[in-house]
Parts: sequence; C-alpha cells; structure tokens
Amino acid sequence: MLTRPLITLTTDFGAGSPYVAQMKGVILSLCREVDLIDITHAVGPQNIREGAIVLADTTPRFPPGTIHVAVVDPGVGTARRLIYTEIGQQRYVAPDNGLASFLINQALPQRLIALENRAYWLPETSHTFHGRDILAPVAAHLALGVDPALLGPPLETCVMLDAVLPQKSVSNVTGEVLYVDSFGNLITNIARNDVVFLGDMARLSVQCQGRTIHGLIPTYAAAMPGEVVALFDSQGRLEIAVAGGHAARELAATVGAVVCVSGNL
Amino acid sequence: MLTRPLITLTTDFGAGSPYVAQMKGVILSLCREVDLIDITHAVGPQNIREGAIVLADTTPRFPPGTIHVAVVDPGVGTARRLIYTEIGQQRYVAPDNGLASFLINQALPQRLIALENRAYWLPETSHTFHGRDILAPVAAHLALGVDPALLGPPLETCVMLDAVLPQKSVSNVTGEVLYVDSFGNLITNIARNDVVFLGDMARLSVQCQGRTIHGLIPTYAAAMPGEVVALFDSQGRLEIAVAGGHAARELAATVGAVVCVSGNL
Amino acid sequence: MLTRPLITLTTDFGAGSPYVAQMKGVILSLCREVDLIDITHAVGPQNIREGAIVLADTTPRFPPGTIHVAVVDPGVGTARRLIYTEIGQQRYVAPDNGLASFLINQALPQRLIALENRAYWLPETSHTFHGRDILAPVAAHLALGVDPALLGPPLETCVMLDAVLPQKSVSNVTGEVLYVDSFGNLITNIARNDVVFLGDMARLSVQCQGRTIHGLIPTYAAAMPGEVVALFDSQGRLEIAVAGGHAARELAATVGAVVCVSGNL
Repeated sequence: MLTRPLITLTTDFGAGSPYVAQMKGVILSLCREVDLIDITHAVGPQNIREGAIVLADTTPRFPPGTIHVAVVDPGVGTARRLIYTEIGQQRYVAPDNGLASFLINQALPQRLIALENRAYWLPETSHTFHGRDILAPVAAHLALGVDPALLGPPLETCVMLDAVLPQKSVSNVTGEVLYVDSFGNLITNIARNDVVFLGDMARLSVQCQGRTIHGLIPTYAAAMPGEVVALFDSQGRLEIAVAGGHAARELAATVGAVVCVSGNL
Repeated sequence: MLTRPLITLTTDFGAGSPYVAQMKGVILSLCREVDLIDITHAVGPQNIREGAIVLADTTPRFPPGTIHVAVVDPGVGTARRLIYTEIGQQRYVAPDNGLASFLINQALPQRLIALENRAYWLPETSHTFHGRDILAPVAAHLALGVDPALLGPPLETCVMLDAVLPQKSVSNVTGEVLYVDSFGNLITNIARNDVVFLGDMARLSVQCQGRTIHGLIPTYAAAMPGEVVALFDSQGRLEIAVAGGHAARELAATVGAVVCVSGNL
Repeated sequence: MLTRPLITLTTDFGAGSPYVAQMKGVILSLCREVDLIDITHAVGPQNIREGAIVLADTTPRFPPGTIHVAVVDPGVGTARRLIYTEIGQQRYVAPDNGLASFLINQALPQRLIALENRAYWLPETSHTFHGRDILAPVAAHLALGVDPALLGPPLETCVMLDAVLPQKSVSNVTGEVLYVDSFGNLITNIARNDVVFLGDMARLSVQCQGRTIHGLIPTYAAAMPGEVVALFDSQGRLEIAVAGGHAARELAATVGAVVCVSGNL
C-alpha cells in the first residue's frame, strides 16, 4: 500500500465553519489520495500570534513531510505575499505575516518560496479567500508531488513576529501569559530553563494578578481542589492553574497578564 | 490503489455531538473503506434554510461522486420522506424538507428517489434519529456500490424552499441578510450580477440598519480598522463587514435584516 | 487493499483544542496507516461520568477491533493507573478512573491490562499530558499489531463508577437527568424496560421540575410547537423535550434533576 500524503489545516474560521469544508473540497478535488487532519479552527479571529504558537507547539509532532496549511490572514487581498517554507521535517503554506515565526525561532527554514505561479492556484481567485483559492490548491499540488521550486521564486526573508521573551534579573524572571487553554489554564512564555538558575522549584514563588503561589508542583493532582497552583505544562512552559477550576476566571487574567517568578525565599 | 468513496456529513447536532460519531460508527461498520469529511455540525437547530445554504455553497467543491449526508430534520418520525438525489456531479441523501433546494435552483436533479427499501436501513430504526438509522446506512451502501435504483421508487418532485430573491427597481436593489458567518460578517442574498446594472461598484451606496456605506471595496484590507465596509465575498455575494471587527454586533443586525444597494449618487 | 486500523478519540479538551492535534501527530508519527475519528472533545472538563456515558452510547457502533482512546483524566500525574481493556468487540485505552464503567455494566471485559511497559510510551513523558505521552503511542502500537499482553501485567479489577439506577415502586419509577444534549433535550436514566410494568405508554405521566406531561409520544413531530413532551430517544432512554425548543432552558433543568414516571391515571 502506498502511503498517502498528509495535509493539516489550521485556521481562525471557527469550529464548524463551512469555509474549512470548502478548502477540503478543493484539496480533495485535486488530490483524492490524501489524509486530512484538523489542527484547530479556533484560533482567535485574525490572531496571528496565537496561530503562530499553535503551529510551533503542534506541527513538529507530525510525520516528516506533512504539509501544514495555515490561514489566519487579515491581510488577504493586499500585496502581502503567500509563502511555502520547510522547517525541521515539516512543510508549510501560509500567508507571509509571521505565522511561521515561532517555528523559525526553533530552526531556520531550509527553503522559502513565494507562491506566485498561478498554474497551481484555482483558475479563479477571490479577493477575500486565498486559503481556498491559493493555499488549498498549492497544498494539493505539493501532495501530488509537485516540486516546490515550481511554485514561485525563492525568498531570502519572511515576516517575523517579535518574540515575547521573559526578562531576567538576579533574583527573578518576569514574563507574561501567552494564551489561555480550554481548561482556563494560564500558559506563560517562561520556560523551565529560564528559571533553573533561581534554584529549587519547590521553593520558588510565582506572582500573578496580585496572587502569590508558593512553590511549583509537579502535577495538577498534587493540589487541593480549588487551590491556585503553578507548574510546568506538557510543553515545558510555566502554567498557572486552579485544581478542578478555571484559573483565567479565578484570577481575572488574560493574555498579556504579567507573571513574575522569584527565587528561594 | 483503489480510490475510496467519500462521504460528507452536514448536521445541526452541534460541534462535538456524539450523535455525529454514532453516524460515523454505523457507516464504518457497513463500509470500512471510506473517507469521512465533516462539512459542518453547527447549522442552527432545525434551521433547514441555513443547512440548504451550506450545502449549496460547499458541496459542489467536492470530487464528482461524493456522497453528502445532510441531517437537519425537524420532521423526523412523521410521514415526511427521505430522498436520494443527484445534482451536478454530487450525490445527496437527506430528508425531503428543502435541504437540497438551493442546489436544485442551480441545476435540476438528474435523479430523485424515495428511500423506502428497508433492506438498506439498520435492522431496527428509532423514531427520533433517522440520520443514524436510515441515512447513514444508505450512504454506506451507496459507497459500497449499491445501485441507487434499488433504494426505492423514483419521485417526480421534492419539497422546495422559497428562494429569497432580491427586489430590483430602476435605481436600487433590496435584499436581506442570509446568514452571519463566524467572523460576524453579514452575508446577503444580493449577488454581483444583481447590481451590475447600477453602474460603477466604487460609487454604489449600501444601506443597512440605518447605516450608509459609500462605495464597495475589493477586499477587507482596503478598509481602515473599525470601518464598516461592503464587498463581494468569495461566493460572489454582497457582504457587510467591519474591518478587524464584528459587523453583526456593530450594526445589531441578524438574519433577515434589510439591505439596500443604490446606484451612483 | 489492506484495511487500515481505526482509532477514535474522546476527550474533555474542548472543540478545536490543539492538544487533540498533538495526540493525532503522535499517533500518525508512529503508525501512518491508520484512520482517525473524533467521537467528541466536548465532554465537560474532568467530567468522567459524562465521558463514560458517551463511550457506552457511541463506541459499540464502531467496527470490531476499533481502538478507542479516552482522555478525561483529572488524576493525571498521580498514582492512578492507565489501562487497556477489551469489551464486546471494541478495544479501549484510558485512565483507570471509571471511564469504561458503563460499557462494563453492559458486558464484562475480556481482557484488562495495566499500561506499565514504557517501551510503548513516548521516550519522554510529561506529568500533565499522559493522553499524548502514553495513551496515544500505546494506541498507535496496538494499531501496528503489538500484542496487548506486552503492554503490561493483567489486572483483576478496575475502578467502577456507581450506576445511577432508577428507583421503582408499585405505581411509579423515579430517575434523574443524565445529561443535556446539544438540542437542550433532557436525557434520563430511565429505560423503556424500566416502565413497561406501568402499562400503556400513552397513558403514563411524567413529572419534572414541577411540570406534568400526560402521555408519552412516539416522536418529536407528534407535538405542537413549544409543547413539553416525553418520549424514548434513539438509545431507548426516556427524554424530555420541547418541540422546536430547548427543554433544559424551558424547565430550568440540568443534570441530576429528578424525573418521575407514574402509571395510568
């Protein structure tokens, strides 16, 4: 049995949007032998930064050669470019608006191409839905084995988002909430490595929204029900959670809220 | 490699409803070699008109021969029929309640059959879930290659929804909001062709909910952030949007709101 | 063509959670030739009972040998076990927290194994996401044909939830609302067989939240619009519905609300 190519979809269209199905119809009409996987369609509308985090956290888990189509595209219909890029062992087609930034922070692209060859687009393209009219057919042609060099001219650079890095001092590390997950957990931009120099995890303190959490715990279940806790999540990021509850509501915190980790007291 | 048949699902069960998974289990138990694609499960409960719009906008994008199962079925358990129909190059199984109307407005059915042959249903059928007990197994049998003529007797007609057509006068076109998409954009029943006779797009004015928009723009990105704009969407329908915002909330508009396009001022 | 193994996913991660996609990436990286089906990701956060109902209602519909991965796991990172079990013709991997209870009430497990062999886990496992780090790779190895006996030692027992059984007297049956479906229908723990001894269905009365419903009907469509009705749903459970409406809102009822069925008046 020949293995089918794999295409994933990441958009801000909303769960259950028929726009996603239109993209799938276009892909399947060009390349019937393909497996389609939804990463998420719940990226906040036009929230490029959130889309970039999702792509960086999720797509490296996929088999080598997977084609990832990302559509968070507030600039659709303007002169912004669309790009093909290869990062690690994955392949991406997306608007050139920073969606690949956090992947590129992890590993330089092996290849970067502007999608300019209309031979691989739909014959008619709208002004408002390049995900369906350009990115979907390009992904289908890649799945059919088209050489990426045919898609357009190589590029030297692409748009990069500012990384939001935590600030370190002698005795603490200050970062912020990157996103809120579906359990209400506050996921920060502070990695385990960022706070190692502060000493024993169990003796650190974490401050957020006027609350102080004493000591990091290894897992949710080490907490009392309702307790506000801090721990490293499955991506290695500092996370603030309420055991059996919803930290974002409990702390009235959202994206951008400041989080400070201090050394042994 | 033999190509697998393709079955899509469109329902009003809500995203994440296990009822959808029950249908998939029934299909896969009868026909293991099939690819399943979700169109949407977010059609408003019992909203046949919205389901009909989704089917008309989305399903013609799929490969020829795709089997589309549609379940928006407020009449389940009554004498309403279930039908198989072929429209364009697509195949449909659905309640006979108008779900296929807007597809039939585009092209006459090549075939129309009442699903009456119980040999292709589940052995036991409930009174409340014909999507699982009748439509899913019929779709699976079609995927297995069953001749549609075996499903039941041919029909001459099926239920049609009233089309909501825009009204034209010498100097304007009056239509209404058909649905609100996941970005809050107001999608109307006014097509590009309906307003061509009014002259230069950039000089038309659009009125909705007491607001007047001067001139249609080609794409969202031609607007200032927060600006209320009108443009033709990727289906060729007039759409009212707020750049980077949510038009339905901003204009307090919903399905049925009147939209009037006037000629050059 | 060889038939691909089939893996389903049931979680409380929320529709569109990228955590689901991480699990799919892990599975596909280990076993590319597999079909993935979502049962639901809308189980209430940490609601093991709801997850157990969904698994019992849905998974027996799937083809024999299907591998069902269930992740509703408030005890992640504690000493709670993870298990493999075979029930009916289906296979399951899940935390040992009662998720399989209602399946086991229907049929005893043919096999029950503790997932302890780290050879089938990801090389690095987090403390907070065993769905991705243990259950997903174990499911992939099962799909590849690994003998379940290699996954760990056999178990004699697993955690069982209390069944919430209806109480019977001479003249009535008292139960409760098990869950509210996406249409707002109140699904109870009272089965058709539980009330047969009370006589003619059309002459039973049903009480809930101070409302009395006279006579069960065969299907929604036998009701007047807006009428509160009782009927047996497609699983054979007593259900309270509002024709064209939302019973949970109309009756201000939720999970646990008492429902009483009385005999012929």
